[in-house]
Amino acid sequence: MSELSKELLSPQVIWKLETNVDDCTGEAIALCSEKLFDAGAREVFYTPVYMKKSRPGTLISVICEENKITEMERLLFLYTSTIGIRRTPMERTVAERRFITVDTPYGKCEVKVSTMHGISKAAPEFESVRVLCEKAGVPFQTVYAAAQSAATEVL
Amino acid sequence: MSELSKELLSPQVIWKLETNVDDCTGEAIALCSEKLFDAGAREVFYTPVYMKKSRPGTLISVICEENKITEMERLLFLYTSTIGIRRTPMERTVAERRFITVDTPYGKCEVKVSTMHGISKAAPEFESVRVLCEKAGVPFQTVYAAAQSAATEVL
Amino acid sequence: MSELSKELLSPQVIWKLETNVDDCTGEAIALCSEKLFDAGAREVFYTPVYMKKSRPGTLISVICEENKITEMERLLFLYTSTIGIRRTPMERTVAERRFITVDTPYGKCEVKVSTMHGISKAAPEFESVRVLCEKAGVPFQTVYAAAQSAATEVL
Amino acid sequence: MSELSKELLSPQVIWKLETNVDDCTGEAIALCSEKLFDAGAREVFYTPVYMKKSRPGTLISVICEENKITEMERLLFLYTSTIGIRRTPMERTVAERRFITVDTPYGKCEVKVSTMHGISKAAPEFESVRVLCEKAGVPFQTVYAAAQSAATEVL
Amino acid sequence: MSELSKELLSPQVIWKLETNVDDCTGEAIALCSEKLFDAGAREVFYTPVYMKKSRPGTLISVICEENKITEMERLLFLYTSTIGIRRTPMERTVAERRFITVDTPYGKCEVKVSTMHGISKAAPEFESVRVLCEKAGVPFQTVYAAAQSAATEVL
Amino acid sequence: MSELSKELLSPQVIWKLETNVDDCTGEAIALCSEKLFDAGAREVFYTPVYMKKSRPGTLISVICEENKITEMERLLFLYTSTIGIRRTPMERTVAERRFITVDTPYGKCEVKVSTMHGISKAAPEFESVRVLCEKAGVPFQTVYAAAQSAATEVL
Repeated sequence: MSELSKELLSPQVIWKLETNVDDCTGEAIALCSEKLFDAGAREVFYTPVYMKKSRPGTLISVICEENKITEMERLLFLYTSTIGIRRTPMERTVAERRFITVDTPYGKCEVKVSTMHGISKAAPEFESVRVLCEKAGVPFQTVYAAAQSAATEVL
Repeated sequence: MSELSKELLSPQVIWKLETNVDDCTGEAIALCSEKLFDAGAREVFYTPVYMKKSRPGTLISVICEENKITEMERLLFLYTSTIGIRRTPMERTVAERRFITVDTPYGKCEVKVSTMHGISKAAPEFESVRVLCEKAGVPFQTVYAAAQSAATEVL
Repeated sequence: MSELSKELLSPQVIWKLETNVDDCTGEAIALCSEKLFDAGAREVFYTPVYMKKSRPGTLISVICEENKITEMERLLFLYTSTIGIRRTPMERTVAERRFITVDTPYGKCEVKVSTMHGISKAAPEFESVRVLCEKAGVPFQTVYAAAQSAATEVL
Repeated sequence: MSELSKELLSPQVIWKLETNVDDCTGEAIALCSEKLFDAGAREVFYTPVYMKKSRPGTLISVICEENKITEMERLLFLYTSTIGIRRTPMERTVAERRFITVDTPYGKCEVKVSTMHGISKAAPEFESVRVLCEKAGVPFQTVYAAAQSAATEVL
Repeated sequence: MSELSKELLSPQVIWKLETNVDDCTGEAIALCSEKLFDAGAREVFYTPVYMKKSRPGTLISVICEENKITEMERLLFLYTSTIGIRRTPMERTVAERRFITVDTPYGKCEVKVSTMHGISKAAPEFESVRVLCEKAGVPFQTVYAAAQSAATEVL
Repeated sequence: MSELSKELLSPQVIWKLETNVDDCTGEAIALCSEKLFDAGAREVFYTPVYMKKSRPGTLISVICEENKITEMERLLFLYTSTIGIRRTPMERTVAERRFITVDTPYGKCEVKVSTMHGISKAAPEFESVRVLCEKAGVPFQTVYAAAQSAATEVL
């Protein structure tokens, strides 16, 4: 196993930030998400939740490293209506990842190969599949499967 | 079968109004819902949906009679950010309903008895269960089941 | 084009039944879904919705043929807390479907081939993929892609 | 009332297409949505639904004019795993819309003014607010409210 | 910076309690939420989740201080079907808050001003906006924006 | 209080594992859930979330004991598209549980009795209610309430 993968498989600490909003629009939340990704968030996702007084709300979750917490809070405050943000550290197991290029009946496709606990699997890169799919005019899943299969054969 | 129930079981037409918003807050949607109910909506519910540009949105649905459509549209326009409302008529089968009062170990409880396609069932009235539950300090489901059981015995 | 496919591609009318419940448990809704499928529903799905008084509710939707409406209503009334069911007819475009068996590195796999508007695509049968996946101990998507690719080659 | 608004307020017929998928990935659904918008869909949204065998599924809904139905079906079939698409016509009430430019403390902002059933309201254009907000470094809602207020004053 | 704001900006510990239910009705969950707020919960929200055997379930989350945990557990047990409750401590960053009253074209409105990481923003109080909106008969967002803008000018 | 209940009421540590996927199908997620339960997960649930680029995604959550973490990670990696899994320990309060059999008008029914913070409540076993309900042809809730009531009387 490479040095890189050893580091990746050792316990990592990552932070999860959370805030609930019921007085913010969807377009503001989406813009905030874009800003959080631009500033280095590892993951941003939002969940529809039921809040007090029959209000549909949104739970915004941000996964980031410890040194990004203040910047993430600043962006959440700037782009949404939040006035309080919770956070908790989490351990993380991350697969070892590498990228390969495979041949498919529709052209060359980039594929991510990941390995965890001794198992390997291949996931075609979305943008790469999209381009082939648009050029060939065939179903998205057809190109995706072709690239995934081709990658499995060379693992 | 009573006159009432015959009328209830014949096909009814009811309207469903729908609008999607991604630039409206949850507290405005909840207020709109309250206004729609006050103005005679049979049902108002909202569903979290995924809209364009990664925006969390809300599909607002209103069930009402045909003569309420204009007023429902006016309220939707006034309290939310909508600029377009769709609608479709639907047929409806409604159970015959009557209310009875039953004795439970926690006090008297109002129960709705409904009948459809030859089957009857009992559903305790929420506010009635709540009062008994708060007085007795026992689990909500315990009071609910007691009232439901008592009603079933007298059907 | 076969007789079957012509029939499938001409406009069909199918019914959509809907009901909202906020006084029914999830385990009852799941049981109702099972009963509806057993009785011939084409599709049953439920959507989390926000109902009045801050209540999390469920919108139950059933897709069925016209001659099944009464039985579907009976089952909805029997297994859930519903007291009113809406319905609307819908047109439907259905792909022409046939089943083929393909060879994969993990064994033979059944695949559904569907055609609509001149495009064909392949979708491996879930149960068939599951069996191969469990036997080979490889990722689900790896087997799925292998079967999908193999089917595409013989289309 | 202008010619345009009269036309907009008279009942329009619009189509709603729907399909449920439980064997399609989120990235494929998002790509399909983009293609549907590019091809003229008035609205595309998707809803998380519970499907058979404990599967999380997605209900994809497309709002389009009648002459777009075939193209929408073709794209749904090409980019997702769907094998059957339902549709129903709906009436629609649409607000009269016009665009104005207003001055705010952060710069000029484009605002959409809409009118329905005698009521007018203003909604700042998202991209216009975003630009001012990024330049001024102030909260999104602060710029949004300034533009909305400024537009209200000139209605 | 005031004493209050310094205290608010230093890391706080708050607890998050969670439980999943699939055998509880929506009306019971909503009642429980009301009781939890009455007993001092800082936040209560619920999320639709998919649970085993195709059951639509609800994840109930409660945010509270450490000395409230036992009472929150007691209420969750009493009003829902839960038989097990998880909990975890979380750090929290809270904005400094103060309330001001502003003049709008529709009357006086209360606004909450919050400050975090050097940024300030204003959020009109919902009940205050509702009253003005009902009196003036203008769109909710129109009043909201007027109050938000007026508050920004005096920050 | 029995030895068992004392142990159950003392703080327990349980782990929560989480991963987000937007490139995995619903049928794969459901299969993974089944495998996780088979391997000893205490709870598995999934939540619809909004992920980047307008993608509908799923947050998969697994509750398990510490010594199961590696096996849970292996199954998540094998059956879904995940390439990274987060985890956090949580304390847990669990009710004391015992099972009793009660007589109902529809036959004998198994009921779970649980006790927490001095309160007891009864929950009929789903499979037991289902059997009686199918045999008697009466509404699910009618049988459920009868069993719940009968159990409450003997607590």
